[in-house]
Amino acid sequence: MEMFNQYQFIGCTETLEEAKIVFFGAPYDGTSSFRPGSRFAASRIRIDSYGLETYSPYLEKDLEQYLIHDAGDIELGFGNRDVALKEINEFVKEVVASNKKPLMIGGEHLVTLPAIQAVHEKYQDLIVLHFDAHADLRAHYLGEKLSHATVMGRVWDFLGDERIYQFGIRSGTQEEFKWSAEGHTFMNKFGYESLDEIIDQVKNKPVYVTIDLDVLDPSIFPGTGTPEPGGISFTDMMRIIKKLSILNIVGADIVELAPDYDPTGVSTAVASKVIREMLLIL
Amino acid sequence: MEMFNQYQFIGCTETLEEAKIVFFGAPYDGTSSFRPGSRFAASRIRIDSYGLETYSPYLEKDLEQYLIHDAGDIELGFGNRDVALKEINEFVKEVVASNKKPLMIGGEHLVTLPAIQAVHEKYQDLIVLHFDAHADLRAHYLGEKLSHATVMGRVWDFLGDERIYQFGIRSGTQEEFKWSAEGHTFMNKFGYESLDEIIDQVKNKPVYVTIDLDVLDPSIFPGTGTPEPGGISFTDMMRIIKKLSILNIVGADIVELAPDYDPTGVSTAVASKVIREMLLIL
Amino acid sequence: MEMFNQYQFIGCTETLEEAKIVFFGAPYDGTSSFRPGSRFAASRIRIDSYGLETYSPYLEKDLEQYLIHDAGDIELGFGNRDVALKEINEFVKEVVASNKKPLMIGGEHLVTLPAIQAVHEKYQDLIVLHFDAHADLRAHYLGEKLSHATVMGRVWDFLGDERIYQFGIRSGTQEEFKWSAEGHTFMNKFGYESLDEIIDQVKNKPVYVTIDLDVLDPSIFPGTGTPEPGGISFTDMMRIIKKLSILNIVGADIVELAPDYDPTGVSTAVASKVIREMLLIL
Amino acid sequence: MEMFNQYQFIGCTETLEEAKIVFFGAPYDGTSSFRPGSRFAASRIRIDSYGLETYSPYLEKDLEQYLIHDAGDIELGFGNRDVALKEINEFVKEVVASNKKPLMIGGEHLVTLPAIQAVHEKYQDLIVLHFDAHADLRAHYLGEKLSHATVMGRVWDFLGDERIYQFGIRSGTQEEFKWSAEGHTFMNKFGYESLDEIIDQVKNKPVYVTIDLDVLDPSIFPGTGTPEPGGISFTDMMRIIKKLSILNIVGADIVELAPDYDPTGVSTAVASKVIREMLLIL
Amino acid sequence: MEMFNQYQFIGCTETLEEAKIVFFGAPYDGTSSFRPGSRFAASRIRIDSYGLETYSPYLEKDLEQYLIHDAGDIELGFGNRDVALKEINEFVKEVVASNKKPLMIGGEHLVTLPAIQAVHEKYQDLIVLHFDAHADLRAHYLGEKLSHATVMGRVWDFLGDERIYQFGIRSGTQEEFKWSAEGHTFMNKFGYESLDEIIDQVKNKPVYVTIDLDVLDPSIFPGTGTPEPGGISFTDMMRIIKKLSILNIVGADIVELAPDYDPTGVSTAVASKVIREMLLIL
Amino acid sequence: MEMFNQYQFIGCTETLEEAKIVFFGAPYDGTSSFRPGSRFAASRIRIDSYGLETYSPYLEKDLEQYLIHDAGDIELGFGNRDVALKEINEFVKEVVASNKKPLMIGGEHLVTLPAIQAVHEKYQDLIVLHFDAHADLRAHYLGEKLSHATVMGRVWDFLGDERIYQFGIRSGTQEEFKWSAEGHTFMNKFGYESLDEIIDQVKNKPVYVTIDLDVLDPSIFPGTGTPEPGGISFTDMMRIIKKLSILNIVGADIVELAPDYDPTGVSTAVASKVIREMLLIL
Repeated sequence: MEMFNQYQFIGCTETLEEAKIVFFGAPYDGTSSFRPGSRFAASRIRIDSYGLETYSPYLEKDLEQYLIHDAGDIELGFGNRDVALKEINEFVKEVVASNKKPLMIGGEHLVTLPAIQAVHEKYQDLIVLHFDAHADLRAHYLGEKLSHATVMGRVWDFLGDERIYQFGIRSGTQEEFKWSAEGHTFMNKFGYESLDEIIDQVKNKPVYVTIDLDVLDPSIFPGTGTPEPGGISFTDMMRIIKKLSILNIVGADIVELAPDYDPTGVSTAVASKVIREMLLIL
Repeated sequence: MEMFNQYQFIGCTETLEEAKIVFFGAPYDGTSSFRPGSRFAASRIRIDSYGLETYSPYLEKDLEQYLIHDAGDIELGFGNRDVALKEINEFVKEVVASNKKPLMIGGEHLVTLPAIQAVHEKYQDLIVLHFDAHADLRAHYLGEKLSHATVMGRVWDFLGDERIYQFGIRSGTQEEFKWSAEGHTFMNKFGYESLDEIIDQVKNKPVYVTIDLDVLDPSIFPGTGTPEPGGISFTDMMRIIKKLSILNIVGADIVELAPDYDPTGVSTAVASKVIREMLLIL
Repeated sequence: MEMFNQYQFIGCTETLEEAKIVFFGAPYDGTSSFRPGSRFAASRIRIDSYGLETYSPYLEKDLEQYLIHDAGDIELGFGNRDVALKEINEFVKEVVASNKKPLMIGGEHLVTLPAIQAVHEKYQDLIVLHFDAHADLRAHYLGEKLSHATVMGRVWDFLGDERIYQFGIRSGTQEEFKWSAEGHTFMNKFGYESLDEIIDQVKNKPVYVTIDLDVLDPSIFPGTGTPEPGGISFTDMMRIIKKLSILNIVGADIVELAPDYDPTGVSTAVASKVIREMLLIL
Repeated sequence: MEMFNQYQFIGCTETLEEAKIVFFGAPYDGTSSFRPGSRFAASRIRIDSYGLETYSPYLEKDLEQYLIHDAGDIELGFGNRDVALKEINEFVKEVVASNKKPLMIGGEHLVTLPAIQAVHEKYQDLIVLHFDAHADLRAHYLGEKLSHATVMGRVWDFLGDERIYQFGIRSGTQEEFKWSAEGHTFMNKFGYESLDEIIDQVKNKPVYVTIDLDVLDPSIFPGTGTPEPGGISFTDMMRIIKKLSILNIVGADIVELAPDYDPTGVSTAVASKVIREMLLIL
Repeated sequence: MEMFNQYQFIGCTETLEEAKIVFFGAPYDGTSSFRPGSRFAASRIRIDSYGLETYSPYLEKDLEQYLIHDAGDIELGFGNRDVALKEINEFVKEVVASNKKPLMIGGEHLVTLPAIQAVHEKYQDLIVLHFDAHADLRAHYLGEKLSHATVMGRVWDFLGDERIYQFGIRSGTQEEFKWSAEGHTFMNKFGYESLDEIIDQVKNKPVYVTIDLDVLDPSIFPGTGTPEPGGISFTDMMRIIKKLSILNIVGADIVELAPDYDPTGVSTAVASKVIREMLLIL
Repeated sequence: MEMFNQYQFIGCTETLEEAKIVFFGAPYDGTSSFRPGSRFAASRIRIDSYGLETYSPYLEKDLEQYLIHDAGDIELGFGNRDVALKEINEFVKEVVASNKKPLMIGGEHLVTLPAIQAVHEKYQDLIVLHFDAHADLRAHYLGEKLSHATVMGRVWDFLGDERIYQFGIRSGTQEEFKWSAEGHTFMNKFGYESLDEIIDQVKNKPVYVTIDLDVLDPSIFPGTGTPEPGGISFTDMMRIIKKLSILNIVGADIVELAPDYDPTGVSTAVASKVIREMLLIL
């Protein structure tokens, strides 16, 4: 008799030892200001991934051809942000140290900070490609330096100029847009027209890709904390991932799915497909 | 005093005898694996159709100019798949025998099998145009040969090669895509670029059109069992139906609306408009 | 200590005396036939506007640079339509009399009638630009002359031919389309291809803009009384508003958000952004 | 083959001529101030009644033993309250004139007014039993005399003192409670302890029973415009109906189900069972 | 670092070999007529069980003191009822053969049939205690002998008279109530007043307990296929389980949670607590 | 013309200077482990309070007879728990210093800690009455000492034995129940049978009342982070508040409404009524 008791993302059936890619969840949403709930993303994605095929007709590849381990979720409390960030950082360090590639599922966007820090320790010339509706470049937010709304600013603090490339940005304060325009980050407002050119520039460097799923239009992805109409389509996202496949990606994350805000379940299905495609190009 | 107690799709007010087109429901979803509920489609569509106009500005025609009968739903149990399929088959045979055209509302996609079988008995050179996100070409699914995921495979069993034309397909196993590519069906992946050419090829033959509404992008049609992002738009669907209008369509179905998964009601509104347009070209 | 007890649309912090623009709600939905609930729009928009930035990257302007007053909602009963319309008319007259521009948030589309009447008293050569999925040109609806489905017909009653320009229309009776085609209104079916030309024609006249948000596709705006698939995108709407910015707009309204029908909250976010952009071009 | 196309409350299969009881809907909610939607009640009840048995183990009777006709819904517009009330009044007059008993499904509570007026024309010594969370005795509400919040006041206008008996009342203004206490109506606050005594007093008179379903606790009946915690249980309601069965009931109504506010469907199931029991004692 | 990747009911951490109790899911709902979805119960219960404590203040016991294994779900297709029933039967036989006690989570009530058959093979003098809103004693339902609405009739087919004790029953056809009253089953309508007496009678026999959770009032348990107002309270259920703890229970099941119909999540929380208590008395 | 732009709890219309009672929100839910969202409680309660009467038939008093100020919400970030607690503490100190009584609306239960600390500074012999489903007496939770699950333990840290009286408790670890039974707190499991006796004991002392609304049964109050079936009824709560009215209450809070988890809106209505009654006895 066949029993069903797996609790893994579809096709991520390898042991940790054998795996080349480590899929894991970082269910932290403690600084979410508007609508919390991204903490539930990784858990829901695993379950709903069973409505998905392992084969991608976009990339014409199958997850079953790759060595991927689902490590589960890091167990995080919510009251103490700094402890949570430290635990994520340590986990990613371990993954990188064993020459595996991490694919982290948020949680809110702040979880990206300790992950990039960990990857950056190994790859000093790291480039960050950032897909998002929001610039996330504020100096402070509600009185705090560490927040989902300041995260790329904090990444800039240690990477510096000409390392961060932002796409799809369509919301922020006037200051954020100005600060970026002063040359601190490269910003492609609204879409991703410059992506080919940027890929060409960075193709010999180690790249970290952070995808805040709210870069997608909320018509196809309403299940997120701060939906911003005017985003890219799912087909755009498939095109983007195909383009990224020629890069040397050393780590990636996919954040800000808040599944409870989309009762249709479509947002979770979208996130699952984006994850499948990212796993296939890592 | 005006009383309101109709329970028919809007504009389908003809008696069975006078009608040229028979609209009916086949509320079976017994093999749905992921999210059942398409059994409720026909019933919800009738009620919500009163938010619709009988006039189509797309086709510049009005339902009131046609002779259409709403026959209600076939009463089907759920535990016994084979009984359900047989009853659908018999009903469609009766419709076809009296020289009327059937427009069936599913239910899951498996209901298409007995309907095409019935139409095929009369039209031996039948062509099937299949709009869907899924290839539905598996040999087996969860151990069963008869399932919503195998239905076009079962249709092929009696139609054979060069009879089935598939559009919008964007999900399936590697085996399904391969099997189709061996020439068993014509498959237009993702979109419908080849539709004009195919229409030209089949325009002298009797055609059955089966529309699995999940061919639409879930941004506009989330209310379905297995939503697959990356689909065609509603405007695409209007264009497709206009193109189909020159064909000799002898039967059609529209399946896989599961209205409860879309609390906004938009999916039902979409299905109702697709039905109105199909009725206008039959 | 910072306390939070505002109940205003974001950035509308001016006093009535100093303001040049008056934002207010007209929460009436008493003739809604299919799905009521637009009465809740203004109240929900104010609260959710705190998830929005005051800065628009589309127009590169900031609400904080303008003098806008949020006057709250007109308190309206529901059983007596004529009293409600009279109160809206009187309020808009006061606004116009003090040389301020009104931006009214519906409510159903019928609230547009008394607002345009008030603006027309001052601007006899008023032009109306009407964005909507529905023609709203019926003579009667369910036995009544005054209804959300007849409102542009009633506006025509006092404005006459060549004053009303309709965009995005994709639903109506055959009679409405015919009557418009006889030259009573200009109608751009489905989209807004003629907008540039019309703007050129009317750019020296006072213009009232009425936006029924169901002109948007229900994929991005499901929260409305009568969703009609096949509409324009949010990006289209941003383009339209940018084009309108060169006109002499003397009043505007944004109607038919029914927030309860969209549990994801995206419709309210869309409405809030459309309002921000309209405030920035008034 | 068995087809299913009925659209009647379960067991209400008699023709109008043969029937002794006439079930009908009055889908008007035009004065609802807080949450509209009771207009959808009758339509939803008919569909969901197919989840119900015709047999009541409470009364040990079966609907199939009675002659009941489902007349559908009166078609009503929403903008003109007075027209709607007049149409309800005329319909009930016809029913009463042909010696049948009306069971009306609201709609909001205001629909009770024209129904009682019609019944009262025939039965001058009519007694009204009123089950409700709200006193509904205001003189005015939001500036209007005719409203769901004033309806029992308006009934008192023509019935006068000692005719109206109210049960379950737990919300109202201080004035309403005072006015009732002056002897204008009999009021049993919170529960129905005095019901046996009242039944004894009125058992020889013609009685009209009006049940505002919000008399039930919102734990079992959340689907209503103004839910008031602290109500009676469903079992209490079954007991009440059994007690009422010895009265000479000449008409009844059941109002204020707003099905969309209860996504679980339980409120509609509750309303359907209350209706079944009322039909069995009429 | 602590990782979280379990997918077990809380406290069911024993291996199969060591366990005395086997918890498992039978996610079949193929004959559900009104609202399917109980197939999702076991999966949701496992996840939400992490909001629960392992300690019961009702029984003053802790799950951690017991040897319980969570075997996952039996993998079942939906189109073929007979195959599904056979697989359940075989699994329960294995459990019973190894001298462990099964606690099965449905699925619809029909899954009880093969489970009782398996247990009965070992315990020929088996007694069944049945808690339910529905009698489930029909001869046929929608033309089928095997259905959720006939299941206790099918159990009677092999157990015969004086073996089945039913509590909480408040819905059924007139025939079902009559047939039971002829002595075929013991039936406690509405409540469980006779439970003490019955427990006394059967306390020396092997007992199977089947709990259709719709025996609970839908105020506390709306998430089920056919909610029936008028049920027992959660506190009643706790009392019942405490009473049952003195019996020799050799198997049990808990069925008919359909979690998607209760967006509040309370129904799943209720089911989880009932399961915890049942595990503690097995 | 009457405009509506208030954003206050109904009847709380006094200025801060004149008021005797200060109503305010503390929208913090940063340590919520299972389902966040109580941050939205105060905001939703204010809006929905307009469906409420100011008059209580339970207490026969009217809010308009009292001097109450609605101070709005304290603006709090989420990433830094300690800053949030400090701001609440300071606000309550100010209120108490000016001889007004605070009624705080949570937020999660942890907000009670800084409020009681502030009140305790003034009233050294303070007694705490605690109504809750959960004991909240843990030493640590997910590695943190300060959490919604430890809050009464932290209150005990400075109040010590014989100061905390707990009612309605029905969930916790075995350790929590044991620790309380050692005499550290008085605990009335499940209900409130000992309340009269306790009131008699503490009636000469200053009392702080903290109501975690999950003490109510989730049938009437599903909108909370951790619903626990088996709670007290709304009528019980009304009885409790009436009993408390003879005490010298110097501060109170009402916490853990998470309105988004109850789409019916009933939980917010319940919370609003509990608040009205508490305001009337302060």
